[in-house]
Amino acid sequence: MAFIPGQSFTLAEIASALDLELRGDGGCNIFSIAPLHLATEKDISFLSNAKYAEQLTTTAAAAVIVTPEYSDACKIPALIADNPYLAFARLTALYDDLPGQKQEIHPSAVIADSAIMGGGVSIGANVVIGEDVVLGVNCVIEANTVVAARSSLGDNCRLRANVTIYHNVRLGKNVTIHSGTVIGSDGFGNVPTGEKTGRFWQKIHQLGGVLIGDDVEVGANTCIDRGALDDTIIENGVLIDNLVHIAHGCIIGENTALAACVAMAGSTYIGKRCTFGGGVGIAGHISIADDVHITGMAMVTGTIKEAGQYSSGTGLLPARQWRKSAVRFSQLDSMHQRLRKIEKHIEK
Amino acid sequence: MAFIPGQSFTLAEIASALDLELRGDGGCNIFSIAPLHLATEKDISFLSNAKYAEQLTTTAAAAVIVTPEYSDACKIPALIADNPYLAFARLTALYDDLPGQKQEIHPSAVIADSAIMGGGVSIGANVVIGEDVVLGVNCVIEANTVVAARSSLGDNCRLRANVTIYHNVRLGKNVTIHSGTVIGSDGFGNVPTGEKTGRFWQKIHQLGGVLIGDDVEVGANTCIDRGALDDTIIENGVLIDNLVHIAHGCIIGENTALAACVAMAGSTYIGKRCTFGGGVGIAGHISIADDVHITGMAMVTGTIKEAGQYSSGTGLLPARQWRKSAVRFSQLDSMHQRLRKIEKHIEK
Amino acid sequence: MAFIPGQSFTLAEIASALDLELRGDGGCNIFSIAPLHLATEKDISFLSNAKYAEQLTTTAAAAVIVTPEYSDACKIPALIADNPYLAFARLTALYDDLPGQKQEIHPSAVIADSAIMGGGVSIGANVVIGEDVVLGVNCVIEANTVVAARSSLGDNCRLRANVTIYHNVRLGKNVTIHSGTVIGSDGFGNVPTGEKTGRFWQKIHQLGGVLIGDDVEVGANTCIDRGALDDTIIENGVLIDNLVHIAHGCIIGENTALAACVAMAGSTYIGKRCTFGGGVGIAGHISIADDVHITGMAMVTGTIKEAGQYSSGTGLLPARQWRKSAVRFSQLDSMHQRLRKIEKHIEK
Repeated sequence: MAFIPGQSFTLAEIASALDLELRGDGGCNIFSIAPLHLATEKDISFLSNAKYAEQLTTTAAAAVIVTPEYSDACKIPALIADNPYLAFARLTALYDDLPGQKQEIHPSAVIADSAIMGGGVSIGANVVIGEDVVLGVNCVIEANTVVAARSSLGDNCRLRANVTIYHNVRLGKNVTIHSGTVIGSDGFGNVPTGEKTGRFWQKIHQLGGVLIGDDVEVGANTCIDRGALDDTIIENGVLIDNLVHIAHGCIIGENTALAACVAMAGSTYIGKRCTFGGGVGIAGHISIADDVHITGMAMVTGTIKEAGQYSSGTGLLPARQWRKSAVRFSQLDSMHQRLRKIEKHIEK
Repeated sequence: MAFIPGQSFTLAEIASALDLELRGDGGCNIFSIAPLHLATEKDISFLSNAKYAEQLTTTAAAAVIVTPEYSDACKIPALIADNPYLAFARLTALYDDLPGQKQEIHPSAVIADSAIMGGGVSIGANVVIGEDVVLGVNCVIEANTVVAARSSLGDNCRLRANVTIYHNVRLGKNVTIHSGTVIGSDGFGNVPTGEKTGRFWQKIHQLGGVLIGDDVEVGANTCIDRGALDDTIIENGVLIDNLVHIAHGCIIGENTALAACVAMAGSTYIGKRCTFGGGVGIAGHISIADDVHITGMAMVTGTIKEAGQYSSGTGLLPARQWRKSAVRFSQLDSMHQRLRKIEKHIEK
Repeated sequence: MAFIPGQSFTLAEIASALDLELRGDGGCNIFSIAPLHLATEKDISFLSNAKYAEQLTTTAAAAVIVTPEYSDACKIPALIADNPYLAFARLTALYDDLPGQKQEIHPSAVIADSAIMGGGVSIGANVVIGEDVVLGVNCVIEANTVVAARSSLGDNCRLRANVTIYHNVRLGKNVTIHSGTVIGSDGFGNVPTGEKTGRFWQKIHQLGGVLIGDDVEVGANTCIDRGALDDTIIENGVLIDNLVHIAHGCIIGENTALAACVAMAGSTYIGKRCTFGGGVGIAGHISIADDVHITGMAMVTGTIKEAGQYSSGTGLLPARQWRKSAVRFSQLDSMHQRLRKIEKHIEK
């Protein structure tokens, strides 16, 4: 648990910050957050799952966040929340010791004269900002990040270190991009020339940009390609994890979340409030309805019209058993035909 | 559609640039490119698929690229091409508004005295160029990119921002590397020491380099490892998308294309003109023939001697149905044996 | 084969450096290392597999590393080792021509006054070091790398170019991190707010750090996320390849090796001495025993209690045949029921 000297709050201060009802003594100092079974007398904890209710009587925590129904069972100071897990999530903001960045333009930054910056902008060391870039109020651009010409960031965006934003990329407000991520790289569009000599492939120059809405967070080392003719679009509230690939011309609907290593081929539309597990692959030129949930490593090969949960793949097996099943998989159609033949034989 | 004021061409200028026959009035100004059903009077469009021929009569486009057979059906000005999709691809180059980079060595760049640079080279801010590096004529190295000692670029290469080139990497002519890509990182080679105490693994230092041919384009956040003893080799005309992993000692044949998130293990040889869909995994120490096409997310576990299309995996299913199939997959060999037993019983 | 003029050793010098018995003339100059069938008179080779023993009589190598049982059969000068492959691995260190970095703080580096640096530290161009960072003795930080506040590196660490280390990340001794890798990015933790208007997701700020042991090597463009409350932990001797994703709160046991493109979801524990093939996906909140080996692209969906080798997926098939098997996969449960029905019919 990160313990930052001095960064503590009294329980009463936390109750006030989160606007939660306080039961018991609010004077105890809370230094950090921990699960019930690991918490010490410096920690606040939370009960988000009834099956751990027993731990309320044994925890060493100084205080706990619980639903109203558990407030009486609780012998330690408590904050009362309808959704303790959500209250915990909001509480983490108080204990985040993310290093601040001075509200300055670092002298080593290279910023085009034509760039326009709102008030309160902070630019780190070795940042490079291209021509006609627009940075909204209070944006933070961390060290060694590059923003190419004609791109724009809304208010309160934060680009972590070593991010690359290509030209004609537009971010909304409150967007965070983690390190190593590349936004606006060329989509993978090439046409065979059919020539016997000379170049085999003709590149389709990617003329679109990338349009990202408000309240979007993108993880580390992710790639979002620019569109071929129109923009690639990430709508408001979308969450994208690390090492995700989003190809040219995709549209991702509001509040959808993509876990790490998801790969989307081009021109695919994903609806709102979907969740994609890690490593899911998604074919190009398909459409996925709202409220679709895909389990990890599944292969999405066609349009999905119905909300619901979908999967593919085979479960993990001891390698020796797996090899047998894999061989039989290749014989499945013949097994089916043999089965049909037997059924016909019996029917006679 | 990115609209860049002033960047327009008349249809006659386009016909001339692409060396295509013009039918109708060449004087209209074309500002951008759009599909038939979305085009406005500022756009040129193209018909590359007969099933959209109907749209020739309804499109609002100012002009269109068609094959000779459709030139009469076309009531708007037209360019005649044997392959309109290829003509469209060539046309995109005219409308690419990729920001130029001044033909200068930015004063913040750190360049070893022993580096050799051809005429017309452009070096962006905070670029670092190591000892004995050679940059060909007209190379463009964008901001915050690093090229380590003894590496070389042929003429007309472009390294986008935040690229990393390790030592002893050689690029041919007309090579483009997108942001975040790393070329020449160590291959993953380690030998168990067998020692009970001390280090468990002994690293195999990776003594080879990377050799990349002409006309190669590599996407963003891709990794191409250096060879253990010999070079990893990417032949002329190869196209590599984002987040691809190419392990030490691989050889990729001319004009092969690897879509995003392909992962190749070490010492594997891929032939010419192959295409690999997104997320394909390829075992090490195998060989893949020319003209092999692998569908997305397939697992290539052995040598492929015949040209053709290959696949693996299971299709996407509703999760409840998938769980049943996955259980039965683990029982496939026993199902097969039960089937065999029934067949024998019936034969009797 | 990289040939660096002057970088050669006599066989006697090599015998001494590796502490191996020399048979025959130790005076020959060895310039590089090659497999038996490719070696020239400038090379040393090695026999690590009995099936290539025949090549001992035909190789053009100047010298060879062999086990004692082959020393008599060998007509050229030889080094005798119990494990020639391990001896080869150790030998590669002598021929590694990794460019040195001057033992200096490059004037373009931006280093916080509060950072503490041990003796012999080398800092490359455009490096950015945050407040209260600690760098151990002889650390090498290559160009354009960023180390954020309050992180620490043990002695003899090397961060290659364009690495990003977030705040509160602690590395042990002898750790190498390859280019593009990001350590300490936020874990992917978000809670649905349940609100009809306003933000859909509430971020869980990630308060933990990353703790990495001694003798760890991490490949290029990999991501290791910081923990939500506690640290993500990589134990001593762990090897991690390129483009790997390690989510928040994972613990990876000593000497385990993860090949490229492995993706681990959060709060998963992996034991010691495990190996994971390329592209393996691992579910969150599970536990994997010591000495587990997973083949490439397998999907690990649950806890593994027994050491051994595990696999999943389907083998590669010609696409036409695969489509049939994939259809039958979706019918597997019904096939099983039909089989059961026939068995019952026959039993009667």
